[in-house]
Amino acid sequence: MDNFTFYSPTYFVFGKDEENNTGKYVKRFGGSKVLIHYGGGSVVRSGLLDRVKASLEKEGIAHVELGGVMPNPRSGLVYEGIDLCKKEGVDFVLAVGGGSSIDSAKAIAAGVVYDGDFWDFYKGKPVTEALPIATILTISAAGSEGSPDSVITQEDGMYKRGASGEAFRPAFSILNPALTATLPKYQVACGITDIMAHLFERYFTTTKEVEVIDRMIEGLLLTMVKEGPLAAADPANYDAEANIMWAGMMAHNNSCGVGRVQDWASHDIEHELSAIYDCAHGAGLATVFPAWMAYNMKHDVARFAQLAVRVWGCEMDFQHPENTAKAGIEALKAFSKSIGMPTSFAELGAKEADIEKMAETACYGDGREGTIGGFAKLNKDDVMAIYKLML
Amino acid sequence: MDNFTFYSPTYFVFGKDEENNTGKYVKRFGGSKVLIHYGGGSVVRSGLLDRVKASLEKEGIAHVELGGVMPNPRSGLVYEGIDLCKKEGVDFVLAVGGGSSIDSAKAIAAGVVYDGDFWDFYKGKPVTEALPIATILTISAAGSEGSPDSVITQEDGMYKRGASGEAFRPAFSILNPALTATLPKYQVACGITDIMAHLFERYFTTTKEVEVIDRMIEGLLLTMVKEGPLAAADPANYDAEANIMWAGMMAHNNSCGVGRVQDWASHDIEHELSAIYDCAHGAGLATVFPAWMAYNMKHDVARFAQLAVRVWGCEMDFQHPENTAKAGIEALKAFSKSIGMPTSFAELGAKEADIEKMAETACYGDGREGTIGGFAKLNKDDVMAIYKLML
Repeated sequence: MDNFTFYSPTYFVFGKDEENNTGKYVKRFGGSKVLIHYGGGSVVRSGLLDRVKASLEKEGIAHVELGGVMPNPRSGLVYEGIDLCKKEGVDFVLAVGGGSSIDSAKAIAAGVVYDGDFWDFYKGKPVTEALPIATILTISAAGSEGSPDSVITQEDGMYKRGASGEAFRPAFSILNPALTATLPKYQVACGITDIMAHLFERYFTTTKEVEVIDRMIEGLLLTMVKEGPLAAADPANYDAEANIMWAGMMAHNNSCGVGRVQDWASHDIEHELSAIYDCAHGAGLATVFPAWMAYNMKHDVARFAQLAVRVWGCEMDFQHPENTAKAGIEALKAFSKSIGMPTSFAELGAKEADIEKMAETACYGDGREGTIGGFAKLNKDDVMAIYKLML
Repeated sequence: MDNFTFYSPTYFVFGKDEENNTGKYVKRFGGSKVLIHYGGGSVVRSGLLDRVKASLEKEGIAHVELGGVMPNPRSGLVYEGIDLCKKEGVDFVLAVGGGSSIDSAKAIAAGVVYDGDFWDFYKGKPVTEALPIATILTISAAGSEGSPDSVITQEDGMYKRGASGEAFRPAFSILNPALTATLPKYQVACGITDIMAHLFERYFTTTKEVEVIDRMIEGLLLTMVKEGPLAAADPANYDAEANIMWAGMMAHNNSCGVGRVQDWASHDIEHELSAIYDCAHGAGLATVFPAWMAYNMKHDVARFAQLAVRVWGCEMDFQHPENTAKAGIEALKAFSKSIGMPTSFAELGAKEADIEKMAETACYGDGREGTIGGFAKLNKDDVMAIYKLML
């Protein structure tokens, strides 16, 4: 295991009706004027926004609002949010929504206290300071409610980049699985895929002797394999959602990623797809992962076989472990299909003609130097080959 | 899953040589005068204490020392530590050692800022305020490096009680698996048992639909089953110790215990053994758990069978699941024996004649009202029956 530090100081509040305590927690964590940042109409229509405002008002906490966050959140709204916070003297940013709203809120929180362009953080500057951030989660997926990360799409060029730093860890996050009950099934399935992708990115490592993290990742994956289809079939299944919601947080706050090299090439490969075609991040990941796995299996067949046996329940072929590894990849594909996820360019609406451009941007865009991935270093040719496996 | 809150703001620093950064972290977390609190001579002999002092001095941080913490730490030294801190104006308590040193340090940290007797916290008063605490861990066992808990033995009557509260979460904890290399094998085995016991106490629950936590607990147990014997055979096996050390923290910071009823009767039953016979806590737990399991299996055979299949790799007997459950308990016993742990009163040096007295204290001592345990409510007769199964 490699040396590491781990710091996850977010206060998690989990369960039914907890959004009605928002005001109490904002007060506890020092907010006096809050930006409520959210996406589309469902937060309004469901009455959630009103409940949150009532809870703030009960504690005498002032607030302003900025809705309109899109999936794959854009830089334009971030600039708008920064201006609004500065003008209104906001000292606390509350995201109500999923990963997009939370990531946009994080970008705003960092931008408000920074003299330069907030995009600097998405070009690699570590985030060391930001307004306190809190979240009320409405979909299990991105894990941003517990992570130090944020992903934003730069409208000037339509590329998607991530920023990171301890100041991006939320002060508190409210996780009420009942809030996901009205989501479309497709979105729930995308979320499930995203959570599993966060686990795969950490699972594929070159670091040796990492049993404890392997076992925890496998435990979370087994949970997703059992509970995922239940939630995708019925988003109002509270018990399934509750399991998934905690797994989604654990999958990405890095409890289950410490002390090892991680991969993350699949996220880079997917980001090109969702930046160009504006597909759901989860749908893109469902398409990318089996291809990435098939292409990179050769680097550590034993690890792929271990995943196949321990998570997918495949029989170990001791004479031909590569067969077991392949069976695991097929099991992942079948799982994705079973919850309605795409696994090919055609289903995703992606085009073969864009492959070279996407591989170029994935490997060289915005300061990158020609390779991506920690488990296997992939160059542009490798990335093109992986895209082609999705045809 | 039940509603819950989870807050683990400890900054974990994991890996080789990290104790040399102690001063830097004490500074970061606001300490200017430190009590270094530790146990016996090994911390001194190994040179660890000198390295820690050098690191503090490098950052200009003043310090005083109090050694002499015993296994099953006593109230007497806590009173001494509180007086010393008050006299010297200490503002930060640093434990160097295992659970005993850490728990004693926590008691001191709470006592210094409290007007009454620190023992009030061990009679049930929640700990809401304490000096900042940090730890340098020298044995994987108690999990106190990441937990909000502390257990102290009251010398006036020799009973062992726990206190809890968010103020008991360390500000930072340094986990260097190399520091355990010189431990006696028996102590390593006791630590392994303690970690597994923390997982069992959380595993046995009456709460339904808790797959995610079940799976994480099982993942940590599987890690212990694989890595435990390697570390018990060779405490200098860094890789095995590294896996165990992170598992030990995760086993008890409650990441893997949220949203469910937990049991903890076995700890209460064990505390009587170590309070009277001064046996190692881990050795006591190795003796108690199979007996507790055999006695309580009837309350949820499916859960015991699940543990047997998923962790011990037992074959499921679908017609007679109780046979699978029993096989799991036998597997635990065999595991304990294999790492040199006792599983009977005789091996532990305990006496049948004390059973009634121990059961009485376990169920009624110090404010308890006749039953213990969350999974199965046990009265004095039940506890006596469990002790008798250890004969």
